[in-house]
Amino acid sequence: MSDNAAALVDARVDCLQYCNWSRKIFSQMREGGLDAVHVTICYHEDFRETAANVVDWNRRFLEYRDLIMPGRFAEDVLAARQSNRTAIFLGFQNCSPVEADVGLVEVCHQLGARFMQLSYNNQSLLATGCYESDDLGITRMGKQVIAEMNRVGLVIDMSHSAERSTLEAIEASSRPIAITHANPSFWHPALRNKSDEVIQALSETGGMIGFSLYPHHLHEGSECSLQSFCEMVARAADRFGIEHLGIGSDLCQDQPDSVVEWMRNGRWTTERDFGEGSADKPGFPGQPPWFEDSRDFPNIAAGLAKVGFDDQSVAAVMGNNWLRFFEESFVAAGAPKYCPESSYVGEK
Amino acid sequence: MSDNAAALVDARVDCLQYCNWSRKIFSQMREGGLDAVHVTICYHEDFRETAANVVDWNRRFLEYRDLIMPGRFAEDVLAARQSNRTAIFLGFQNCSPVEADVGLVEVCHQLGARFMQLSYNNQSLLATGCYESDDLGITRMGKQVIAEMNRVGLVIDMSHSAERSTLEAIEASSRPIAITHANPSFWHPALRNKSDEVIQALSETGGMIGFSLYPHHLHEGSECSLQSFCEMVARAADRFGIEHLGIGSDLCQDQPDSVVEWMRNGRWTTERDFGEGSADKPGFPGQPPWFEDSRDFPNIAAGLAKVGFDDQSVAAVMGNNWLRFFEESFVAAGAPKYCPESSYVGEK
Repeated sequence: MSDNAAALVDARVDCLQYCNWSRKIFSQMREGGLDAVHVTICYHEDFRETAANVVDWNRRFLEYRDLIMPGRFAEDVLAARQSNRTAIFLGFQNCSPVEADVGLVEVCHQLGARFMQLSYNNQSLLATGCYESDDLGITRMGKQVIAEMNRVGLVIDMSHSAERSTLEAIEASSRPIAITHANPSFWHPALRNKSDEVIQALSETGGMIGFSLYPHHLHEGSECSLQSFCEMVARAADRFGIEHLGIGSDLCQDQPDSVVEWMRNGRWTTERDFGEGSADKPGFPGQPPWFEDSRDFPNIAAGLAKVGFDDQSVAAVMGNNWLRFFEESFVAAGAPKYCPESSYVGEK
Repeated sequence: MSDNAAALVDARVDCLQYCNWSRKIFSQMREGGLDAVHVTICYHEDFRETAANVVDWNRRFLEYRDLIMPGRFAEDVLAARQSNRTAIFLGFQNCSPVEADVGLVEVCHQLGARFMQLSYNNQSLLATGCYESDDLGITRMGKQVIAEMNRVGLVIDMSHSAERSTLEAIEASSRPIAITHANPSFWHPALRNKSDEVIQALSETGGMIGFSLYPHHLHEGSECSLQSFCEMVARAADRFGIEHLGIGSDLCQDQPDSVVEWMRNGRWTTERDFGEGSADKPGFPGQPPWFEDSRDFPNIAAGLAKVGFDDQSVAAVMGNNWLRFFEESFVAAGAPKYCPESSYVGEK
């Protein structure tokens, strides 16, 4: 399939990957035309362990400087494109790096974090996760952390949080929030996918959802067709407005199954939790053949065109919507969009 | 004493303070015309504890935003002056935040650190301190850390290090280094003051020394006269060149004596170490009457003029030399002086 010509001159963004990083994988980002990727650097790590993960990324930025560069602000997406590299934005899938100290929110932003989930499957100090049987919404500390994230420019991500907590986070946040990687329940009613009510509330407040290519989130799993995926995007555009839609592939390429075990179990359980998997299928599921790795992004652009999206709409979903969201989200509250001043402390 | 007119239009910098921070103290910085102050945020703290100290400073930047702002790069000194505030640059008097991980050097720079001493009185993993009986010079890890500090733009400070270690650091560093707070031994031969050989080597490589106003570093201690201090500066200018001289007052205002005990003892000893003090004088010594706090900076400028410095020379010592050094030192190796790009990873 050939790429969409208009999309080539626009930003292409994948708003969630957690791969076993290597030269091969960064090269494939370039081959797929990705100008920016949001990568996970924490599932259960505390602050000190997260700092060690930042050290690992700093080393990668040096070692692979021909292919990637640190993504801190929206303009880095354009700088990456101009230098034929991919800007890597760091994010947490859990609030564990903040521990019990709201002051660590700003410190994590200083270390480059741009997205943080308020909970990962389980109850956290801030919000309920999607695997808990009850959902108590945003906690007292959660409200403080949301305000602090709003101030410094750290995006609230509710991908793995429960319904009520997600709706309350949207309500409590003074800035748009994100669900970086999930799909609509109307297409595939998985526990991790999101209700119309959630996506509607997200959209009405200027938020973004990144559509996932992780098989457990897909209609018919690994057998899901590109056409079905793209028709889902078209239905979502009709219901919620195209400007709130992007891609967050949740690509976990080249990872051993021990990694999905860490994601699911961390150090919180003495039993074995299978998350979206099961005892007979404990590992990573196979990707659909039309999205094996970053080189397949042009397939999605072509698929969107095939189900009727015009060039501008394809470009919006493939990255321009995320780029606009990055512009609005990563600087301190009240600071100019394109002029992140080191001296700007943000507004309370 | 009236202030020097020319100094008023130039940058005024104090390159070392460790006060019991308060609105009063920040207001006095403004009254003394200070555009930038390098403050200590660590004596013995490990990385996690240092992050907590960064949290405290982030809170101060918010609470006292009418008086201070974060200092990250040289242009922040000018931005502070334009907004009638003082830019606060963070520094460590020890290498303890880096622990045994060279990768934490860059992470500390991301958190705003701009100076780091390689040792504080004692032997460290990197260098020997000035209180050890022997001096083995820069260690294997020390050489690695120096190269990494050079790459990211974290200044090597040898104020509390031993002679050989200091000379080897000057030799090993590819960028100019600093002794932020000490005086020449030729004027007052205290253990913490520096030999002609050290200051000569420092100057020849473009480094800076900040003259200390801490009584233990002064000829005749708390009784030291302004004239004697300024004549010392004049002799140093003759010997080493005026462009390498500045002020690093070592002001420890409003601190209880428990703080000087922490500086001296940290957690490294079960006995009590008195450092530059003694059992009968364990606390902070009294300041000379002409330098009680930041409001007295104009006294020094006037004193320098009185011993014969012209306007330009007074301005150089009072801050312009430090400003030039900041321009050269805080950005990643190879990056433009005034354009710190978030994407710039520096040169090995």
